[in-house]
Amino acid sequence: MKKIGVAILGATGSVGQKFLELLAEHPQFEVKELAASEKSAGKKYKEATNWIMQKALPLNFSDMIVKECQPNLKSKIVFSALDASVAGEIEEDFAKAGYIVISNARNHRYDPNVPLIIPEVNSDHLEMIKFQKYGDGAIITNPNCSTIGLVLALKPLHENFVIESVNVVTLQAVSGAGYPGLPSMDIIDNSIPFIGGEEPKMEKEPLKILGRLNTKGQVDFADIVISAQCNRVAVNDGHLECVQVKLKKKPSIEEMINSWINFKAEPQKLNLPSAPKNPIYYFHEEKYPQPKIHRNLEKGMAAAVGRLRECPLFDYKFVVLSHNTVRGAAGGTILIAELLHAKGYLPDE
Amino acid sequence: MKKIGVAILGATGSVGQKFLELLAEHPQFEVKELAASEKSAGKKYKEATNWIMQKALPLNFSDMIVKECQPNLKSKIVFSALDASVAGEIEEDFAKAGYIVISNARNHRYDPNVPLIIPEVNSDHLEMIKFQKYGDGAIITNPNCSTIGLVLALKPLHENFVIESVNVVTLQAVSGAGYPGLPSMDIIDNSIPFIGGEEPKMEKEPLKILGRLNTKGQVDFADIVISAQCNRVAVNDGHLECVQVKLKKKPSIEEMINSWINFKAEPQKLNLPSAPKNPIYYFHEEKYPQPKIHRNLEKGMAAAVGRLRECPLFDYKFVVLSHNTVRGAAGGTILIAELLHAKGYLPDE
Amino acid sequence: MKKIGVAILGATGSVGQKFLELLAEHPQFEVKELAASEKSAGKKYKEATNWIMQKALPLNFSDMIVKECQPNLKSKIVFSALDASVAGEIEEDFAKAGYIVISNARNHRYDPNVPLIIPEVNSDHLEMIKFQKYGDGAIITNPNCSTIGLVLALKPLHENFVIESVNVVTLQAVSGAGYPGLPSMDIIDNSIPFIGGEEPKMEKEPLKILGRLNTKGQVDFADIVISAQCNRVAVNDGHLECVQVKLKKKPSIEEMINSWINFKAEPQKLNLPSAPKNPIYYFHEEKYPQPKIHRNLEKGMAAAVGRLRECPLFDYKFVVLSHNTVRGAAGGTILIAELLHAKGYLPDE
Amino acid sequence: MKKIGVAILGATGSVGQKFLELLAEHPQFEVKELAASEKSAGKKYKEATNWIMQKALPLNFSDMIVKECQPNLKSKIVFSALDASVAGEIEEDFAKAGYIVISNARNHRYDPNVPLIIPEVNSDHLEMIKFQKYGDGAIITNPNCSTIGLVLALKPLHENFVIESVNVVTLQAVSGAGYPGLPSMDIIDNSIPFIGGEEPKMEKEPLKILGRLNTKGQVDFADIVISAQCNRVAVNDGHLECVQVKLKKKPSIEEMINSWINFKAEPQKLNLPSAPKNPIYYFHEEKYPQPKIHRNLEKGMAAAVGRLRECPLFDYKFVVLSHNTVRGAAGGTILIAELLHAKGYLPDE
Repeated sequence: MKKIGVAILGATGSVGQKFLELLAEHPQFEVKELAASEKSAGKKYKEATNWIMQKALPLNFSDMIVKECQPNLKSKIVFSALDASVAGEIEEDFAKAGYIVISNARNHRYDPNVPLIIPEVNSDHLEMIKFQKYGDGAIITNPNCSTIGLVLALKPLHENFVIESVNVVTLQAVSGAGYPGLPSMDIIDNSIPFIGGEEPKMEKEPLKILGRLNTKGQVDFADIVISAQCNRVAVNDGHLECVQVKLKKKPSIEEMINSWINFKAEPQKLNLPSAPKNPIYYFHEEKYPQPKIHRNLEKGMAAAVGRLRECPLFDYKFVVLSHNTVRGAAGGTILIAELLHAKGYLPDE
Repeated sequence: MKKIGVAILGATGSVGQKFLELLAEHPQFEVKELAASEKSAGKKYKEATNWIMQKALPLNFSDMIVKECQPNLKSKIVFSALDASVAGEIEEDFAKAGYIVISNARNHRYDPNVPLIIPEVNSDHLEMIKFQKYGDGAIITNPNCSTIGLVLALKPLHENFVIESVNVVTLQAVSGAGYPGLPSMDIIDNSIPFIGGEEPKMEKEPLKILGRLNTKGQVDFADIVISAQCNRVAVNDGHLECVQVKLKKKPSIEEMINSWINFKAEPQKLNLPSAPKNPIYYFHEEKYPQPKIHRNLEKGMAAAVGRLRECPLFDYKFVVLSHNTVRGAAGGTILIAELLHAKGYLPDE
Repeated sequence: MKKIGVAILGATGSVGQKFLELLAEHPQFEVKELAASEKSAGKKYKEATNWIMQKALPLNFSDMIVKECQPNLKSKIVFSALDASVAGEIEEDFAKAGYIVISNARNHRYDPNVPLIIPEVNSDHLEMIKFQKYGDGAIITNPNCSTIGLVLALKPLHENFVIESVNVVTLQAVSGAGYPGLPSMDIIDNSIPFIGGEEPKMEKEPLKILGRLNTKGQVDFADIVISAQCNRVAVNDGHLECVQVKLKKKPSIEEMINSWINFKAEPQKLNLPSAPKNPIYYFHEEKYPQPKIHRNLEKGMAAAVGRLRECPLFDYKFVVLSHNTVRGAAGGTILIAELLHAKGYLPDE
Repeated sequence: MKKIGVAILGATGSVGQKFLELLAEHPQFEVKELAASEKSAGKKYKEATNWIMQKALPLNFSDMIVKECQPNLKSKIVFSALDASVAGEIEEDFAKAGYIVISNARNHRYDPNVPLIIPEVNSDHLEMIKFQKYGDGAIITNPNCSTIGLVLALKPLHENFVIESVNVVTLQAVSGAGYPGLPSMDIIDNSIPFIGGEEPKMEKEPLKILGRLNTKGQVDFADIVISAQCNRVAVNDGHLECVQVKLKKKPSIEEMINSWINFKAEPQKLNLPSAPKNPIYYFHEEKYPQPKIHRNLEKGMAAAVGRLRECPLFDYKFVVLSHNTVRGAAGGTILIAELLHAKGYLPDE
């Protein structure tokens, strides 16, 4: 099968690198163009980037000449790993010029007709792009890294028991801050009880993702109240989240766990290449899940849940973990592209 | 002034060592006897212990012969740093034999006439020891390390605005697990969402501490509902806690902060040697408090509070930090002894 | 092909667990028996062990009943992950009873007819077992974890340029101390310039491994002087070593590097299942190799070398990294077994 | 006594902040002016800097208006915490304009008449400034952070036994890279065997410091060969160094230790305010010294030595630790200023 050519915008940053690492041997997509800031454009990729991934820089990328982020690329599918300071306008320029932009940036997440997608949760929201005013082009967005693990765990609960409120306190990995990100002096032997802009994202994004698509191609936000507190800890990868939920129909502990372990959604049914066999794993050992042990579950695409127990203030409390740069960023965005492809939203080459 | 002789039970463990470090130059107390398990008894202290404190082992202790934990010590005041597996019985034996036992162990915390004391919070509960059946002896207990910081921050709120419910999620330092405690392989590049027995302690101890002494010398527990989730992180010292509170009379943010920064209690009025000038500091920088930066505030005896903001689910959320082995263990216990001394509960030598 | 049954002695410890993890899907060996101390014997494996590996405990092992370390096992091939405090006698008992013991323990490494093997370095030393007095039985040993990476890097240098002296300073991972091993309080925000017994091992083991087999089935130690200094650092896995060498025939930098990257030995020629394609990789980036990035090279079986440069005191200095629990322990021992198998030293089942 | 007014150049960076922290209550000096880059000039100090020290920003500095680094400051004594990219020229401008510049930057360390000073080691080199061509002005430099601990330990050995060669391998703290310095993703669960420019400094600076002042006001470098290898580890503060020495007259172990513990020099004799009582401490416990435990010895101004033992390749090997941002940077520079003051090199106000 001929692979579909794709381009990466913002290819030199840490999320851009993660895209390259994950797409290096992808069965459906082939990275044909790398674009970045003016400073990098014109250089060979290996000279424009400070490669920090664990696997070596794939050879086919190292000598590619980096292009500018202008809508004159050949590939009609572009993954955006752009920084929020520039993503808004560039992504819009690409969409207007007929490109399908699948973005990890926050800028367009709340645009009325732009879907904010977790493929296992709201694949039906992809319909929204038909209402966009970009002609053949479109913008589809991926949620924030700490939102994704949370909402994966919430989805089967909301479906089965209707969530009323959610309280979440996070212990987030340093890779969530990008590279160079957090100075090492700030985090060795330390935790930081603040991550700029993170709490509002966690309190609002789930409402759109769990919301209902209406006839105007917009989303009626879910009627859930969320309170979030976000902390940074000395962990490389993997966001751990302590979650409490209040449910309309309180189930038993067994029903809660069953709703997670039986959860399968469209990516599993469509057998998408990056889809985990099971989106959610439940661990009965009371000391699990842990970032070091469970972040790479299903190549980093599954969420690990554990410690479900009754809560004196809400109905239940539990812990969820997911890999913030795989499921929570590049991997999640690639899964969206696979979903678009499987559902016929992508143009043939 | 002649110093009062004291003994340390469980002197060889990490809490015992902290007692020695903090008492090495104490103006009122002088450590005259060190007691530990049979295994250590008869040895010189420096040979019986694996000294892990940052300051060198004080010379006057290093050659002291370790005694057994039998109620035949000369000092009538004993600090107990015993492990919970043995503390229950030994402490009772000492009390029956007329010793004043000030304990860091959890065993007697809920005994009906045993006070569970944070000197700034419930010094009036010391009255309870008059109802104990130990003759001249008595047992007074210090709360769990993660309880103390929390309750220090709650006290002025409860006093002024009446707390209805509290939600707390902790990021706790490894020193809280004692020594050797947590294996390094478990915590480097990791967080662990479970600490054995910790959550029940945090949900119950504050109710006794914030409760009201009744005429039977017992405590009517405070009418507050608490939910706790406890995590271990890669930090040496300092427990960070994300707290949410619901209050009967919701104050303004300014009133909340004022209640903390104006808070002074009996240890401050009595000018006790280990008392911090201010038990609570409020930091306005949104990235504060942090364990590495604030744990040693007032020699580790003050709590640091920050990030006060409205909460969509409770009234307010905020962060509190306190030093778990100083204020949360040995230092807090010493402050209790100083309070007992100032209020005339200690026998003259 | 029918797999060869093997047993693990000391199966419940961290090295024992690593054996199970690595042998779970081995093409030639099948773990049929698990043995451990009396305390564990009779229990199901999952109940006898505190599984700490990142991959879940393979199901086929979890319900196996743990046996005692007595030479009445059915499998004639046994991997020893025993602690040095008991390994000496038990391994000898097994060898006398006709078992082939491949050991990760240090006890028999210097026995006159016991080979100390790194398969890429001295596979010819396997001949020594013919001189052992154990009948059909034999003991073969694997070197210390910090020795293996070093000697892999030294082998091509010694072969081509003749080493006269070696200076090595290590930065060793905490997993080298086993589990629970190093307390977390000792290593967060710290380094420790001492590892008990490690320096003598590094100064002596390479001399036997690089030595020459004589006609008495013993080894004439190599004529090299080694000085070692060993440090523990806050790294989970991967020993980093700063090495300096003085050579009889000083080569060019290019010749040094070529000797490493062209190095292939018997495991590669025999295409052994656990053999890395290349035992040694050279990295030209001056900040490489690093534990986090390179320890899993070739599934943890290859050594990473870098930073080769002239030395004012020796001829050259460079850095070598290898995975201490894979190549440096269980993985290296399994490779020895594969070598024994390929060379016809193992009995048919 | 009226204090001498001083200014800090580069006051907003991490070394500049350390100067302020250490000078906040200095008995002889009073910081009267803060200067930094154009970007900061004109702002209040608290707005121009991102204060990262553990102690709160002293109030008397927080509202000071930051000045430009132009030689129009009132204070004639300036401490330079400037970055090497700009320090060369600015320091020279100040010296030419009659200022006494005491610098932590590397730029002028090898200028022929510029002394490179460790007050305990070569206070006689201060004479060199008389040969400088700056009129009343002068430049005096402080060595690199990893050099200082090493040379403190070498000084008594060289004096007593004459050093021929030195081999050193470092495990350096992240604070040595300044702020933000090393990204946290690079060092959690990792070590890095490379620090740009560090090894040449360690191989050369000691030769000047231990050299002999000649009649031209220059230094004849010491006849010692040094080889250095520098590593970064996950430690906040404190450089640990594994050292080997070859000596002309090989002493006994006892003589080695005595030379260290009896070492006192001019700062001790002059009783300078920042001088440690003992510049060097020797620890007999084989696991010592350690950064977390010993870096604050004598407020971070003393070096900790341990693990002295015979070396198969050199005469002896040992370990030295010193605080890189106190003794190795701001504290060392302040001690130079105190020495200049005590010896009459500083102008009266």
